[in-house]
Amino acid sequence: MSTTALITDIGSLVTNDPALGDGSPLGLVHDAALLIEGETVAWVGPAASAPAADTVRDAGGRAVIPGFVDSHSHLLFAGDRTEEFNARMSGRRYEAGGIRTTVAATRAATDAALEANLLRHLGEALRQGTTTFETKSGYGLTVHDEARAVEIAARHTEEVTYLGAHIVPPDFADDPAGYVALVTGEMLDACAPYARWVDVFCEKGAFDGDQARAVLTAGRAKGLTPRVHANQLGYGPGVQLAVELQAASADHCTHLTDADVDALASGSTVATLLPGAEFSTRAKWPDARRLLDAGATVALSTDCNPGSSFTSSMPFCLALAVRDMGMTPDEALWSATAGGAAALRRTDIGRLTPGSRADLALLDAPSHVHLAYRPGVPLVTDVWRRGRRAV
Amino acid sequence: MSTTALITDIGSLVTNDPALGDGSPLGLVHDAALLIEGETVAWVGPAASAPAADTVRDAGGRAVIPGFVDSHSHLLFAGDRTEEFNARMSGRRYEAGGIRTTVAATRAATDAALEANLLRHLGEALRQGTTTFETKSGYGLTVHDEARAVEIAARHTEEVTYLGAHIVPPDFADDPAGYVALVTGEMLDACAPYARWVDVFCEKGAFDGDQARAVLTAGRAKGLTPRVHANQLGYGPGVQLAVELQAASADHCTHLTDADVDALASGSTVATLLPGAEFSTRAKWPDARRLLDAGATVALSTDCNPGSSFTSSMPFCLALAVRDMGMTPDEALWSATAGGAAALRRTDIGRLTPGSRADLALLDAPSHVHLAYRPGVPLVTDVWRRGRRAV
Ligand SMILES: [Zn+2]
Ligand SMILES: [Zn+2]
Repeated sequence: MSTTALITDIGSLVTNDPALGDGSPLGLVHDAALLIEGETVAWVGPAASAPAADTVRDAGGRAVIPGFVDSHSHLLFAGDRTEEFNARMSGRRYEAGGIRTTVAATRAATDAALEANLLRHLGEALRQGTTTFETKSGYGLTVHDEARAVEIAARHTEEVTYLGAHIVPPDFADDPAGYVALVTGEMLDACAPYARWVDVFCEKGAFDGDQARAVLTAGRAKGLTPRVHANQLGYGPGVQLAVELQAASADHCTHLTDADVDALASGSTVATLLPGAEFSTRAKWPDARRLLDAGATVALSTDCNPGSSFTSSMPFCLALAVRDMGMTPDEALWSATAGGAAALRRTDIGRLTPGSRADLALLDAPSHVHLAYRPGVPLVTDVWRRGRRAV
Repeated sequence: MSTTALITDIGSLVTNDPALGDGSPLGLVHDAALLIEGETVAWVGPAASAPAADTVRDAGGRAVIPGFVDSHSHLLFAGDRTEEFNARMSGRRYEAGGIRTTVAATRAATDAALEANLLRHLGEALRQGTTTFETKSGYGLTVHDEARAVEIAARHTEEVTYLGAHIVPPDFADDPAGYVALVTGEMLDACAPYARWVDVFCEKGAFDGDQARAVLTAGRAKGLTPRVHANQLGYGPGVQLAVELQAASADHCTHLTDADVDALASGSTVATLLPGAEFSTRAKWPDARRLLDAGATVALSTDCNPGSSFTSSMPFCLALAVRDMGMTPDEALWSATAGGAAALRRTDIGRLTPGSRADLALLDAPSHVHLAYRPGVPLVTDVWRRGRRAV
């Protein structure tokens, strides 16, 4: 029998199970306790009727939430782009290579350096309450460099995305069709064994609708499920394509027509919003309220990457979503946990109900609302992952 | 002789002394070392020529900055206002008492509870790199409750502000003149021994220009130096009054006429901007660029309080200032350190040069630019205060 651990005197517990507690989408239980058995949640209910356990932790009236599910990040990279950011924010011209700068640094890095950088960012995210993360290739853009990216990623997460179609690399500048052939051929063959997802940056200057369709359908034929970088910098075919191909998620969704919103609301594709990108590039905010009011499922994620959104902080993204994207604190918390799980087609995480994975965070606050009410303050003090104290 | 401690292999050291390093206002020294002797900085220079010391700490190429100087906070309070915040952000009506809610909770709290709450927030701020903080009374609004607030504050900081003139309390709703008489009379007498500063909320609905002048001149006659809550919610006389009375700082400065900007640029009063308040109330941003271009001295601070800005995070405020207020990352760092010191008329803090107080923070980043580049990420890993490791 597994060891049991009880967390009790939880002032406010977010279960994300409407059948529990107050019946809201967050399934809030006040004065709660939660029993962990092995890697899973075994019991949730009022502290007064909690079962006995091998160990007991008193939460002192503070809040417990499901661990954050960060369903969109780019952590296989080397180097950073401090000078480019500094120049952009200081109004200075900077002849930057953008993604190309990171591609060059990533290609030049050793496997050990790439893995160390990944682990550094994962540790940082974990300390901020992220217990599941997806991460992508996309800074290698050769068969060798993409394959080693997904291979290294797969050592540390189940949620690995093959993003050979991030940009057309300089070496293929005159032959984008040749690059798509590589991405859908030899590169895909090398990467598919390590990845669960296939992704494409469908945007003017990256890949158009036809190219994106080719990438996603080729990936699907190799057993990968599509997700799409869609409609970030302008209107385009990305969202419609994602819904048509039943992608798990359309990510960014900053520029949406009414037809795009309708498609997301009526299809199975989650709209994943990435406010860190808009924050760090001074771009217009995605309209979460419009999507929610239409009935779409919304996830929040960091997009952590060294170019356009170098934050690993889910609490920060949540605070932005409340301030600038029309989400309530409850909706933002749901989207950063259960929403992320939906974007990864997972039902075992993003919630705290009997049978779900015991991934959770204890806040130095009486309520999850403090994540928006106290922006920038590191409120996560303890993290359990698969039932074990990780922070 | 005092013990000496050397911090070496500092990738990037912000000294805020233009005579040092690269000659910029931040006085950046690369590959630097810093020697602490007792409570002060004894030496700063290239790591290669660092003197010997009793203990040596290797910063591993990371950045060191002066500890943040948070020159505006309201930490003497009880209770919080989660429900009011939640309702505001969720678009629900909430019949809130606003500041009055906090006044009632504060009056009902014991001295021990007030002090414990203060210490909790100070610890939280310290872990985020704040080594000096100013804090205010203003939630007591009786002679007894204001006096105990400044007395408790004075146990923990040299920078105590008497803010009896925060609002007219409900008990004086029909007699604001009577309240001003109390604030400038018996209440001032009780508070002056514990305070360095006198402050007033000069705003429509709080205190008008004449009342504010009465409060500030009465405080000055008792040896307190003025600072003013000015021009937060709309245009008004606060900024001009602050400059005329040579207040150390005019705080908020969100709605400024050209004449206000000119006054700040030509006077000795620092403009202290508090972006946490605009963030948490969805208000328009103060225009730091306009003030800097006019030649005003700008400080950044948290305004930490449970109603309109419940953040203790100087890094968060700095990131907002860069994103939304037109400051460069360098300017924002200066304003959050040396700027805060100027707003408190201090020259011993906010800089790291020989003779200054050894208040400093080590970042998990190669450069101070990362504070804006990596928003929301807790980058402060180690803090020294008066020469001793505090975090
Ligand atoms: Zn992305
Ligand atoms: Zn204030």
